[in-house]
Amino acid sequence: MPQPDHVTALDPADESTLPEDLQPYFQKCRDKLGFVPNVLLAWLKRPEKLRNFIKMYDELMLGPSSLSKLEREMIAVTVSSWNRCYYCLVAHGAAVRKLSEDPQLGEMLAFNYRVADLPTRQRAMLDFAVKLTAVPHEINEADRSGLSQHGFSDEDLFDIAEVTGFFNYTNRVAHALDMMPNAEYHTMGRG
Amino acid sequence: MPQPDHVTALDPADESTLPEDLQPYFQKCRDKLGFVPNVLLAWLKRPEKLRNFIKMYDELMLGPSSLSKLEREMIAVTVSSWNRCYYCLVAHGAAVRKLSEDPQLGEMLAFNYRVADLPTRQRAMLDFAVKLTAVPHEINEADRSGLSQHGFSDEDLFDIAEVTGFFNYTNRVAHALDMMPNAEYHTMGRG
Amino acid sequence: MPQPDHVTALDPADESTLPEDLQPYFQKCRDKLGFVPNVLLAWLKRPEKLRNFIKMYDELMLGPSSLSKLEREMIAVTVSSWNRCYYCLVAHGAAVRKLSEDPQLGEMLAFNYRVADLPTRQRAMLDFAVKLTAVPHEINEADRSGLSQHGFSDEDLFDIAEVTGFFNYTNRVAHALDMMPNAEYHTMGRG
Amino acid sequence: MPQPDHVTALDPADESTLPEDLQPYFQKCRDKLGFVPNVLLAWLKRPEKLRNFIKMYDELMLGPSSLSKLEREMIAVTVSSWNRCYYCLVAHGAAVRKLSEDPQLGEMLAFNYRVADLPTRQRAMLDFAVKLTAVPHEINEADRSGLSQHGFSDEDLFDIAEVTGFFNYTNRVAHALDMMPNAEYHTMGRG
Amino acid sequence: MPQPDHVTALDPADESTLPEDLQPYFQKCRDKLGFVPNVLLAWLKRPEKLRNFIKMYDELMLGPSSLSKLEREMIAVTVSSWNRCYYCLVAHGAAVRKLSEDPQLGEMLAFNYRVADLPTRQRAMLDFAVKLTAVPHEINEADRSGLSQHGFSDEDLFDIAEVTGFFNYTNRVAHALDMMPNAEYHTMGRG
Amino acid sequence: MPQPDHVTALDPADESTLPEDLQPYFQKCRDKLGFVPNVLLAWLKRPEKLRNFIKMYDELMLGPSSLSKLEREMIAVTVSSWNRCYYCLVAHGAAVRKLSEDPQLGEMLAFNYRVADLPTRQRAMLDFAVKLTAVPHEINEADRSGLSQHGFSDEDLFDIAEVTGFFNYTNRVAHALDMMPNAEYHTMGRG
Repeated sequence: MPQPDHVTALDPADESTLPEDLQPYFQKCRDKLGFVPNVLLAWLKRPEKLRNFIKMYDELMLGPSSLSKLEREMIAVTVSSWNRCYYCLVAHGAAVRKLSEDPQLGEMLAFNYRVADLPTRQRAMLDFAVKLTAVPHEINEADRSGLSQHGFSDEDLFDIAEVTGFFNYTNRVAHALDMMPNAEYHTMGRG
Repeated sequence: MPQPDHVTALDPADESTLPEDLQPYFQKCRDKLGFVPNVLLAWLKRPEKLRNFIKMYDELMLGPSSLSKLEREMIAVTVSSWNRCYYCLVAHGAAVRKLSEDPQLGEMLAFNYRVADLPTRQRAMLDFAVKLTAVPHEINEADRSGLSQHGFSDEDLFDIAEVTGFFNYTNRVAHALDMMPNAEYHTMGRG
Repeated sequence: MPQPDHVTALDPADESTLPEDLQPYFQKCRDKLGFVPNVLLAWLKRPEKLRNFIKMYDELMLGPSSLSKLEREMIAVTVSSWNRCYYCLVAHGAAVRKLSEDPQLGEMLAFNYRVADLPTRQRAMLDFAVKLTAVPHEINEADRSGLSQHGFSDEDLFDIAEVTGFFNYTNRVAHALDMMPNAEYHTMGRG
Repeated sequence: MPQPDHVTALDPADESTLPEDLQPYFQKCRDKLGFVPNVLLAWLKRPEKLRNFIKMYDELMLGPSSLSKLEREMIAVTVSSWNRCYYCLVAHGAAVRKLSEDPQLGEMLAFNYRVADLPTRQRAMLDFAVKLTAVPHEINEADRSGLSQHGFSDEDLFDIAEVTGFFNYTNRVAHALDMMPNAEYHTMGRG
Repeated sequence: MPQPDHVTALDPADESTLPEDLQPYFQKCRDKLGFVPNVLLAWLKRPEKLRNFIKMYDELMLGPSSLSKLEREMIAVTVSSWNRCYYCLVAHGAAVRKLSEDPQLGEMLAFNYRVADLPTRQRAMLDFAVKLTAVPHEINEADRSGLSQHGFSDEDLFDIAEVTGFFNYTNRVAHALDMMPNAEYHTMGRG
Repeated sequence: MPQPDHVTALDPADESTLPEDLQPYFQKCRDKLGFVPNVLLAWLKRPEKLRNFIKMYDELMLGPSSLSKLEREMIAVTVSSWNRCYYCLVAHGAAVRKLSEDPQLGEMLAFNYRVADLPTRQRAMLDFAVKLTAVPHEINEADRSGLSQHGFSDEDLFDIAEVTGFFNYTNRVAHALDMMPNAEYHTMGRG
């Protein structure tokens, strides 16, 4: 499948500007995924920011949390669907397909999470994420206690809020820059 | 002025859990501002995340950029106004008042940035930030080239997009947690 | 603090056209407030309408009602926040700060009334005002009986509806004319 | 045609409470229209307010203005259509039919003003009224100068803004109270 | 009452292109209604499609269903009101007036169905139709079981969904083509 | 890949009720596609309607038109994306992938058509379809003449409007019934 003709609408960063300390990280991407995700090349435009982005992202999506990695990716896709973010839907849709080993789940979350037959706990988590994305000023105590009634702790609420918020951030950077996903994502986890 | 009765809706983090390496940062806040911003106490609930948050925030708002610190705060307030985020409007409204030495500018951006009589370059910057906040999927090439016609470089576009995105993240965390601003902000920069 | 450079976007009315019977009213404003509110100078463009505006306004906000003056101002600010009306947020935000002697309450209602820790009766009143402002055609019998369950009488419901409606009117005139508030409001009731 | 079974959802006001000075006004309605418009009976719940309402309304809709009475009614219907206000669409739709002697114009404005083949000046007037109704905070200098390019003076702009604002007020009171129009309106001006 | 000056914004179809098999249908319209509805002349632009349109329409609105013809017309008007479709509001508003012999019901559904005092079963049907029109992706199992609790069968749910969907289709074609209703509709069923 | 556990939320229709004249059509589906699309099984709940649906659909999507079959499918997917219709995004997304032999185009239209690098003529067609879907009452003469400036004839405008309208219909039926797509679509045209 052909690569998109641009990483972003900006003049591409020259990978030779990649700070030395980040080179092993890029190499790890190539080793594990076979490519460097375009989001990193986009952020390379501002290398100091790239370093912070990687740290925050890895802690958020891969660090310790009682939300599983799949659940965090489910939030990522559902938020990105609300915001209609092409980059994140392609990249994180692939992640949901892989982690869940359920290609249809990835499609459901990307198109309309309400059609997925989810455990009520996960459905409540995604309902909260969508409300927080769409009408953040309407979130209220009933929404928070709704999560706690589904067994989410205060720390879990923090993590749900942060993953939701973070993709509202990256969705907007991707839209602003016209960021295109690597072609490889399209075929991942199609089963 | 009395402090709000809660930092967030969650059980407050115990400051004794503050990692040692972050203690000088909290002390610097107390020395410079007279208090630790509640957003940091909120994030202390997840100390690893606090460390990343501080690094990203400081680079974003205080690090090198051809956007002035005031301009970055102007975006912060305008985005937070769209999202009706009480914490960020109070805290960053104070920052706009102080940095601009124009208390009315802070009020204008917090209530409706369109009433402010801004240089067209700054107005274009805020129009972009609001469109990216409100209807991110409608940002297009005309919006990007509009910014470049006002003299913004590719790096500036990145920075505008990132500040806009970042406050769409923190606004949502603040809403989700019912985060309350320190009382001191209300009187800062009132002139 | 400097006065704004215009009262409205229209050619200013000449105060010499002020009808004689209204001169004492303007004098009373100067005596009590120290200035004539710009809204009156805006309406002076159409002196017959000014007279009616003053009568309706004074009855509505200061006349007999079982809603307190503060409660009427709270509705004014909350509606103006929904409509993002700079003039009314500045002028009536000051009124809430003064009448409540609680500067933070003024900020909360102006930014997002949902964060204020209000008695449930007042919260119900503001929820009704916001729904009536945002989606008037969705108001229904359940909304009305909700108010009556909080102890509001039929007359109170009328008054809540009328204050809400009235600020939907003046907010729009202020937006249409680019009406700017007197600088004095900014510092009133900051405590 | 049968009268609706209620004037408003509130306990009806007793017409014996009608202040003496307003009795000739009600009589004039009966003489000219054959009935007292229900909006007046609704406002009779608060007689002091009724007096102010009548004065403001008559000046606004019938007093001197370079907008014709028909044009003011056209704004009334178009605004009420946006707000889906049954009372005002029935009562002022009838007025447009009568004043214009064009029953289809009344239907067009009530259903979707964009389908009416209007002079560009009137179309600009209604476009302004709808924008001011739907997204008041987006009105800007270009909208104002657009009106002036169609020959509207500053006073005309004031009047367009005020009629628009006023029906945003009465539409909301009518929705809040479930106000029903007199049956007679339905057949007026059907030609 | 004068006919509108155009059937649609397109060059009108020549009735001589009407396929022979459809001529009796047009004749039946002239016999029963006194005119051929403009929607048919609009579709004549594409005669093959006209044939399918007539078949689907007649089955949908006149064929066997446990929804009465009036109920199907009530959905048509309510959906068209949400979509502000002039053609359908005029044509199907007339049908509601005639079938119900209640001219005010037609006006209520066209302006704001919420003001009509309907049996709860019909109100539930229209609430479903409006939700499905306005926010189709939010329809859920509770909405479906709500209908069944009001006695609607699976087949009825299908029919409600299909009538709702169909007018979302024809409303859009009417808007796209600027389709104008025959003048005769305006006076039908006015009682 | 497993089939979804339901065709719709309704009790499934028994295929033995399939009218004899439609049996060859179902057989043709099995021969060509390997399965009967679930939308047909859904409509089988009302067999008379199924017959009309098939005729209209086949004429619309496969019949003579100067819009190519791919272009009609592109409208179908773009409209279904706006309406977040899972069934149609899966089924017609597969069609775009197959007809275009460009799997990424299918993803782009399903997620956010604005990211696709389309000929301006096709982009104008999709912009019209989205506006007609999202805010049908705002379509105006400028939108129509915009299409004609891109070379679309009156008949083409009719066809664009009708395909757009039709998917606004079927999207709503699919949402109302919780219609699930056949599993086979997911892997079609993935290249």
